[in-house]
Amino acid sequence: MTLLESMHNPDDVKKLATERIPELAAEIRQFLVSEVSRTGGHVGPNLGVVELTIALHRVFDSPSDPILFDTGHQSYVHKMLTGRQDFSRLRSEGGLSGYPSRAESEHDFIENSHASTALSYADGLAKAKQLRGERDRSVVAVIGDGALTGGMAWEALNNIALGGDRRVVIVVNDNGRSYSPTMGGLADHLASLRLTQSYEQALGLAKSTLNRTPVVGQPIYDALHGLKKGIKDAIQPQIMFEDLGLKYIGPIDGHDEQMTEKALRRARDFGGPVIVHCLTQKGKGYAPAENHEVDQFHATGAFDAETGEAQAKPGVVKWTKVFSEEMVALGAEREDIVGITAAMLHPTGLAAFGETYPDRTYDVGIAEQHAATSATGLAMGGMHPVIAVYATFLNRCFDQVLMDAALHRQGITFCLDRAGVTGDDGPSHNGMWDLSILQVVPGLRLAVPRDAARLRAELREAVAIDDAPTVLRYPKGAVAAETPAVGHVGSMDVLRAAPDAGLPEDLLLVSVGEMAETGCEVADRMADQGIGVTVIDPRWVKPLDDALVEEAARFRVVAVVEDNGRVGAVGDAVARALRDADVEVPVRTYGIPQEFLDHGKRDRLLAGMGLTPQDLARRLTETVTRRTDDDSLQDEPAG
Amino acid sequence: MTLLESMHNPDDVKKLATERIPELAAEIRQFLVSEVSRTGGHVGPNLGVVELTIALHRVFDSPSDPILFDTGHQSYVHKMLTGRQDFSRLRSEGGLSGYPSRAESEHDFIENSHASTALSYADGLAKAKQLRGERDRSVVAVIGDGALTGGMAWEALNNIALGGDRRVVIVVNDNGRSYSPTMGGLADHLASLRLTQSYEQALGLAKSTLNRTPVVGQPIYDALHGLKKGIKDAIQPQIMFEDLGLKYIGPIDGHDEQMTEKALRRARDFGGPVIVHCLTQKGKGYAPAENHEVDQFHATGAFDAETGEAQAKPGVVKWTKVFSEEMVALGAEREDIVGITAAMLHPTGLAAFGETYPDRTYDVGIAEQHAATSATGLAMGGMHPVIAVYATFLNRCFDQVLMDAALHRQGITFCLDRAGVTGDDGPSHNGMWDLSILQVVPGLRLAVPRDAARLRAELREAVAIDDAPTVLRYPKGAVAAETPAVGHVGSMDVLRAAPDAGLPEDLLLVSVGEMAETGCEVADRMADQGIGVTVIDPRWVKPLDDALVEEAARFRVVAVVEDNGRVGAVGDAVARALRDADVEVPVRTYGIPQEFLDHGKRDRLLAGMGLTPQDLARRLTETVTRRTDDDSLQDEPAG
Repeated sequence: MTLLESMHNPDDVKKLATERIPELAAEIRQFLVSEVSRTGGHVGPNLGVVELTIALHRVFDSPSDPILFDTGHQSYVHKMLTGRQDFSRLRSEGGLSGYPSRAESEHDFIENSHASTALSYADGLAKAKQLRGERDRSVVAVIGDGALTGGMAWEALNNIALGGDRRVVIVVNDNGRSYSPTMGGLADHLASLRLTQSYEQALGLAKSTLNRTPVVGQPIYDALHGLKKGIKDAIQPQIMFEDLGLKYIGPIDGHDEQMTEKALRRARDFGGPVIVHCLTQKGKGYAPAENHEVDQFHATGAFDAETGEAQAKPGVVKWTKVFSEEMVALGAEREDIVGITAAMLHPTGLAAFGETYPDRTYDVGIAEQHAATSATGLAMGGMHPVIAVYATFLNRCFDQVLMDAALHRQGITFCLDRAGVTGDDGPSHNGMWDLSILQVVPGLRLAVPRDAARLRAELREAVAIDDAPTVLRYPKGAVAAETPAVGHVGSMDVLRAAPDAGLPEDLLLVSVGEMAETGCEVADRMADQGIGVTVIDPRWVKPLDDALVEEAARFRVVAVVEDNGRVGAVGDAVARALRDADVEVPVRTYGIPQEFLDHGKRDRLLAGMGLTPQDLARRLTETVTRRTDDDSLQDEPAG
Repeated sequence: MTLLESMHNPDDVKKLATERIPELAAEIRQFLVSEVSRTGGHVGPNLGVVELTIALHRVFDSPSDPILFDTGHQSYVHKMLTGRQDFSRLRSEGGLSGYPSRAESEHDFIENSHASTALSYADGLAKAKQLRGERDRSVVAVIGDGALTGGMAWEALNNIALGGDRRVVIVVNDNGRSYSPTMGGLADHLASLRLTQSYEQALGLAKSTLNRTPVVGQPIYDALHGLKKGIKDAIQPQIMFEDLGLKYIGPIDGHDEQMTEKALRRARDFGGPVIVHCLTQKGKGYAPAENHEVDQFHATGAFDAETGEAQAKPGVVKWTKVFSEEMVALGAEREDIVGITAAMLHPTGLAAFGETYPDRTYDVGIAEQHAATSATGLAMGGMHPVIAVYATFLNRCFDQVLMDAALHRQGITFCLDRAGVTGDDGPSHNGMWDLSILQVVPGLRLAVPRDAARLRAELREAVAIDDAPTVLRYPKGAVAAETPAVGHVGSMDVLRAAPDAGLPEDLLLVSVGEMAETGCEVADRMADQGIGVTVIDPRWVKPLDDALVEEAARFRVVAVVEDNGRVGAVGDAVARALRDADVEVPVRTYGIPQEFLDHGKRDRLLAGMGLTPQDLARRLTETVTRRTDDDSLQDEPAG
């Protein structure tokens, strides 16, 4: 049995002899690399928090002292130390989640993997503990320096500072980069500390100060105050936090487990809100990650544990890559196009544009709200901003898309990557909301490209619109095979035409974006049953082309299939358009059930919700057949 | 002609002799009080920025140097000085907007009246100016200390700090309170400056420092740096900003126009991002506002200019008041209920609860995101939070409602005041989005009370639910007359039953919330034509009661009328429920057209969109009659 295997729960971690901690840390790193290399996952961030997580479980009593991880992809070590060491099906159906999961363990609290939320949870939990008289318990939030750039974190700090004797311990896990190097004034300040000061020197000073501080019988406040004074001239970042009324300890070498434990104990015993500033290295202890140029193995697919080489899938072109190439081309043609990302330069494919046009590229930090509204300012100033963002993170700036971009009728293009079911990363990464909530935004136009050619074309159409925001959305992964149009109705592409096959106009199937392939297969299957299906890709799903209503009136049934939650999305929009025009053709809508999805593979999830060509063809055949029977009855004399 | 009347544009303000500025300021104050006392509006904030606005227009060249007002209700003085002095129809149809309006003037930029956005616009506009080579122009953003507690402001500061030579001048208009006293660590820090230091003393020091600083031929950076060093020990708030890399001038007495001008000139000429910290007094110069206990006349209806007394409407009970009373009652019954507001303790009616249960009341600042997620933490900790917020501001925390409250299935109640058409405050204050976007949130339950009795009852039902977030929404203004139920279908209230009137089941009219009165009047009017209408109030509109579908199947036509944008709202939900159950009854949905509404009176706006009983009865009579004719044709032998 390895040392790691003997760690069944946090008590075992607490009881471990201090001198064996490095051995445990080494085993954890080996486990992380060997396991995640098989499944893919967030290996870099977890390699950086090995000692920190050990220290947290030695100092605090989880779950009585809740330990909250901001963007929970840094919780793998926490999982191992809280009874979860079967990583064989990590992020797959039936296996461990890649994030904390309340269903998995009482030690887990936050399942949402959007950044910058943990401090707010901590504030709430601490308030509850205060109200319920549990004054001796702490609430710990571990947050990266990147996540501190998110506005929510500021809102929370501002409130936590009022905490009085509420024991909130904020561990700033500062690795200088979240997905990309952290941007902005705060990051510059933290970076200047690292670059201009020897932090080992600062740490040496801090260590001696800590060692001089009697632990018992001395007002802790004075001890901390003394610590601060002692290193004040050498290092400055705490001043900002102290201006807010938050006590500060640091910076601490987050890979020195004993030093980290000491700092956490002092923070725990202080009796009020404290910030512990830990410096860590992403990918620590695994050379391929440490040396990785872009993101230190932030999130990977399966890789070779020895070399770190990705298990490449040759010949696969991803949606992100198509967007990336087209942006570089557009940048050359139009000097007014600027690129904006919220700390996702590489994952969204904007990096190539950024390398080619650095003056026109802005990484605003994990700050989608600012991304949208500063883009509105840029547009008012005569530029055309393109914001590249994951679909699920657009929710973070819904108010800004509505009240800033749309209300002021500015030409801004949002490109939503990872739209639809993404699967592995669980409920908060699925991009299944945008096609619904964006429907309410006046003037906004929304396109869903079905293949690479359409992504290129619709992106060009979008950036040509200067009096309204536009949105493109496309999935994660490999781009769909090209589905050529066989005809056009208004601005829409016809992908299959029932009359072309010599069949009646039974079903008009509106396929949204990459559901085109599915739609065409449904048509082919139903044609085999003698049912005529016309498949249409509206290309722009908001506003809908008026021609769609005219076209629909000729069919017995209209159906819509889309990779989005089915409530309020394109299906509902098509149904409403028909109702408003007094066209009483029955409409059937197919999409993702309006539920939070468990993590799993995209294909299996879609199959589970009946979005395969087989299932759709079966259900639609039933509907069309029933409708045809009804109509026949009505066509006959009554009685 | 008064001095104010001779100010046709900012050039006139620039040319005004310095010694006449106090005269102009006095005239502006007089104008503000006499005009706004007739129309209602934001008088307190504007009285506080008279000298500041004069100084801004003397130092900067609007609109080449854009002047942006955060929460534009502080732009009245700016309007007067940019050619707009007819306030007779302020906030009414055809009159001036209560906020900046791009249609009114080239001097106006931001129409959105949600807080904390201006710094992001400024960052974007400054980037555009840099890219277009307009390096000598400044962008000015005026933001209150309250708005700085919003997360967006932090995101923007973090980015503006990277601005290099981008000339962004951030004027912090610090009156220590936005709607309520500003809360949080930042506010405490600013307040401690005011309370423990004599700021006049600090100002004296700053003045002499400024006067000692040669204006020409000296590196400005050093001058400012010297200024900072000079007052560093007396006043501290700038350190936080300087940690972020932002230069700071202040604090300045914002009612000393000459001092403010000097500070603004130095900020303008610095050549990079600068914060100018102005101390002002809300309601300045008008005793009833200065002495007003709650909010210094933040926003008022019409009032007596001499006394400041509100023109009371006797006997009117407002929705807010009903909520307020019921919360106090609930607080006595249940110790786990806590109240949360985002800087709107009084406007949302939570103040009474706060006075009764101060330990269980949290004002988190203008920080809706934190409100929602800290509430989730409170709920995880065993409490039941009630968040009182304006409906339109819920959009600010959509992601947190979805990914924090709902994903974790926590019992939190959101009470949305000012839902539906509010009118006067223009497009960004109408609460016309919530019934749509909340439809997508899994597990969330949504009630729309139709009268005071239902608000009380449904609030009690909501706080009894502990495994999902609940939302109640109700309008601004006087509570509707009670509409008793004449029967029940499942959990729903029947308000009019067609069979009771001896009429056929022609139309099932689903009235949402306070549209109950309208619905009943529609039924009465149609009954006069012999058309049978059953009016039903579902009470909870999400999830819809299954019994609604069964009931609907008996009628010839179903209609839904609601006070929300009609896209994706209850009407669409009812239509989808019928489709999903293969019930092919025609559905008609009536609500607000999905557009941004101009400011105006609620009644006139509703009439303009055909939501009066007369119009609805006419349109529905046509629909039912046509449908009846169609059915008759189908019932006859073909041919």
